[in-house]
Amino acid sequence: MRWWGWGDPGEASRLGPRALSSVAEALGCELTPMPPVALARVAVQPSRLSATARSALRSALGAERVIEQREQRILHATGKGYLDLVRLRAGAPEGMPDAVLRPRGEDELRAALAACSEHRVAVVPFGGGTSVVGGLAPLRGELDAVVSLDLGELRSIVLDRESLSVTAGAGLRVIALEQALAREQLTLGHFPQSYEYVTLGGCAATRSAGQASSGYGRFEEMVLGARLIAPAGELTALALPATAAGPDLRETILGSEGALGVISSLTLRVRRAPEQRSYEGFLFESFDAGVEALRQLAQDGPKPTVARLSDAPETAISLRLADSGGGLAHRLGHAYVAARSAGGRCLAILGFEGSERDVALSRAAASSVARRHGALRLGRRGGEAWRATRFGTPYLRDDLMSSGVLVETLETATSWTRLRDLHASVASAISRALHDCGTPGLVGCHVSHVYPTGASLYFTFIARRRAGGEEEQWSAAKRAACEAIVAGAGTISHHHGVGRDHAPWLAREVGADGVAVLRAMKRRLDPHGVMNPGKLLLEATAQRNA
Amino acid sequence: MRWWGWGDPGEASRLGPRALSSVAEALGCELTPMPPVALARVAVQPSRLSATARSALRSALGAERVIEQREQRILHATGKGYLDLVRLRAGAPEGMPDAVLRPRGEDELRAALAACSEHRVAVVPFGGGTSVVGGLAPLRGELDAVVSLDLGELRSIVLDRESLSVTAGAGLRVIALEQALAREQLTLGHFPQSYEYVTLGGCAATRSAGQASSGYGRFEEMVLGARLIAPAGELTALALPATAAGPDLRETILGSEGALGVISSLTLRVRRAPEQRSYEGFLFESFDAGVEALRQLAQDGPKPTVARLSDAPETAISLRLADSGGGLAHRLGHAYVAARSAGGRCLAILGFEGSERDVALSRAAASSVARRHGALRLGRRGGEAWRATRFGTPYLRDDLMSSGVLVETLETATSWTRLRDLHASVASAISRALHDCGTPGLVGCHVSHVYPTGASLYFTFIARRRAGGEEEQWSAAKRAACEAIVAGAGTISHHHGVGRDHAPWLAREVGADGVAVLRAMKRRLDPHGVMNPGKLLLEATAQRNA
Repeated sequence: MRWWGWGDPGEASRLGPRALSSVAEALGCELTPMPPVALARVAVQPSRLSATARSALRSALGAERVIEQREQRILHATGKGYLDLVRLRAGAPEGMPDAVLRPRGEDELRAALAACSEHRVAVVPFGGGTSVVGGLAPLRGELDAVVSLDLGELRSIVLDRESLSVTAGAGLRVIALEQALAREQLTLGHFPQSYEYVTLGGCAATRSAGQASSGYGRFEEMVLGARLIAPAGELTALALPATAAGPDLRETILGSEGALGVISSLTLRVRRAPEQRSYEGFLFESFDAGVEALRQLAQDGPKPTVARLSDAPETAISLRLADSGGGLAHRLGHAYVAARSAGGRCLAILGFEGSERDVALSRAAASSVARRHGALRLGRRGGEAWRATRFGTPYLRDDLMSSGVLVETLETATSWTRLRDLHASVASAISRALHDCGTPGLVGCHVSHVYPTGASLYFTFIARRRAGGEEEQWSAAKRAACEAIVAGAGTISHHHGVGRDHAPWLAREVGADGVAVLRAMKRRLDPHGVMNPGKLLLEATAQRNA
Repeated sequence: MRWWGWGDPGEASRLGPRALSSVAEALGCELTPMPPVALARVAVQPSRLSATARSALRSALGAERVIEQREQRILHATGKGYLDLVRLRAGAPEGMPDAVLRPRGEDELRAALAACSEHRVAVVPFGGGTSVVGGLAPLRGELDAVVSLDLGELRSIVLDRESLSVTAGAGLRVIALEQALAREQLTLGHFPQSYEYVTLGGCAATRSAGQASSGYGRFEEMVLGARLIAPAGELTALALPATAAGPDLRETILGSEGALGVISSLTLRVRRAPEQRSYEGFLFESFDAGVEALRQLAQDGPKPTVARLSDAPETAISLRLADSGGGLAHRLGHAYVAARSAGGRCLAILGFEGSERDVALSRAAASSVARRHGALRLGRRGGEAWRATRFGTPYLRDDLMSSGVLVETLETATSWTRLRDLHASVASAISRALHDCGTPGLVGCHVSHVYPTGASLYFTFIARRRAGGEEEQWSAAKRAACEAIVAGAGTISHHHGVGRDHAPWLAREVGADGVAVLRAMKRRLDPHGVMNPGKLLLEATAQRNA
């Protein structure tokens, strides 16, 4: 992966000059190119690993699995959050791990954690490196050093066809599992934006939801069993279809974000691969009309596999970026023209997967629900255009950042009853914050996942990058959004996780006692506090000051 | 409810003389009537509540809500487990609460817990009083007294029609909620055997699954939000459709069995009431053939709302009891005759609920799956007979106990891959144990819930009661079953919960570190250990000796 952004380093820019000038026009300002520095110019501090710690780690793993080489440390220095990339591209990352560890199995993993725990070395578990909420920041807290624990070697696969489940190593990439399952006419059905890189362990640790989660379920709903290895103990949730044996510790492993221990293996439910996939585009006259249509589908069916509804600003932003040939709508054709001419309209994608017969029935029924809510049908071309480009957004973000644009996303979820109010309050909080920074922006949003009782809201905002003042600019917008979310009874994260960015708001969602209970668990599993400090659970003092 | 058993005290016996002699014949022994003693003969110890504790509780709740009256103490002395009833019916309960508390709301509940925590009084939360795993045993551990905390006054209902959810007090009975929802053409869809008495809080605290859970989901899947009030803190899981905000504390509230605190309110998902319900009976030539049919339905659809499959011994026991006119098959008619003549066959019930069209399509498709696996179709009469009598089993148990019969049930779940082996090993473990006690018995089993990845197994066993030696007899069979379950990778409970009976095996399922993590949580929420001692989490010493 590009050290300074997303995807294959050889990828060309997806943002054409027409799209760029359209964005500049919308933002009402000139944009200044801001390319990344050369890799050689990235500042790298000497490793802080003490000779004793290094020697203990080498005994645990073998010398070749304790990597202190410059490029590996840079590649493990951050996730892919906006601020991470701003700093890295400027050649000034906040810090980096003092070493990268690559255990080959659970025994080496246990030995590595024991050595870190004994020698005051913080551990940041590293899967696909795709966190966008600061989950991989190389923080050492009050310890002496910090290492990145790369799980890339834990990638076994054992299929149980009779029970439709698979047990796999946490370091296995989702895309690799999906490819292996495809050969068996099976699917996991998990397609997050980070699909090309993300690992099973990362999805479990952050409670990931994929683009098809309205149909296939969130990642945590696919997890039957899991193992978490911690410095002072292990939690093993047996792979059971269901159990009433007390509080469900599996749900404590899920979402633990490396702060309680390291997820080493998972047993996941799999399904038959669908015979048919059908995605269609629709254009609603208003966000409210689209929300009502999605609510009806989520509550009364046919339940879509994929359900997305952009509000009017996001529909407009997408169309501007589409001029690049790389965005949402570059293959929309007629639909694109129709959408473009429809100012204020809201683009929706409804996707169905399953048997040919079920897909045909569901498509027809869903279209009629959409039409009853006043939607214009854009046809399959519109839907397939989205599907073909759906993993492209992170590439586009790199291009926008290089062109001097701040681009960030954040997400929440709430009940249908509160959804419209939350949509309005978060969007206006971000807008106001960007305006107050002197960089008025565009704020768009889409419903990305639907449930019978509510839905998620995924916000995207862009503005001119305030060169040299990116951190204050980003923090102001992020803080405004988070405050609006907790005030509006939304969750602080629907699928990105807590990480570092949302940690100050966690107590507002789960309560001070909730955080205290999680800390009590952490003390039992990680008494020396080496597991991912500064993420998920802030130290008590930091939490109070937040 | 009958103080010595189940249901309306006025109910007549459901076990006719022909059924009884058929049971005796099958057990190969004479049966001796063993009726319960008169209520006046039940031994009641004086209340151990100290004057200070009594006075603190009265200040917290008002004197009339601290009840020390004899009959109320007896009614709150146990759940409805076999051994509970054996002792109670003999007039010699193991113990009883020193008082019954009835808080009128969360503030009184908090005050009651504070008083108990301060004055060394153990607290047993009491909902519908239906635990069959010793969850309500009036144990005071190392404390001075024990009270039953009856949640019957917490029964508010607030419906959110737009989000299809309801927020209700934990003391509300499931049947009362279902009746209130029916007036709105809605349903919760939770129908455990204990349906007529069980409360929402009880279902949440024990991770209940109802008879229609294959379709409507387990109780914990219906819970969006929950509040747990503990002596030293509160956990509030917001009612969200989904969240990625760290480990899910909602799943720690669920299954907490009163050992972490008291569940005071819940927000639950509700659904549109089905237009149509259709239940059909089938007769498979073998248990394995039936299991394969259920697996196909669970994995590839149509997914049944209710799916049950009795093995050959259970089918035979059901038919013997049917002679009473009160059992499973008393309205089976032709189907009954067919089943009866089919020795070694296995009875199955498949139920579908939903729109008329969906039910018709599913019924037809499911019948064809069953027929492809060699099933004989018994028709709707067979299914409706089950539905009409499905809450009758606990009444029948009372009658059997009064006739000198040991009757007990226990349940587990595992993957499809392991299901047949677990079925065989648990059944033979129970059989062997009963035989070794000198009271050879009958052991039957049914698959009660199906999932794509596995299913539950629900065992029923009967034998002659060993008068005066019931505890040793029951313990031997129970221990043998639990050992076979953990050895066969089953869960120690699929839906009855851990309580007191399964607590010695919890560490075998979740690991010693899992139990330690739960204890760390408990210490934070309940530092004086007043919450339901001796249930779920045994004290460390007891766990070691188990």
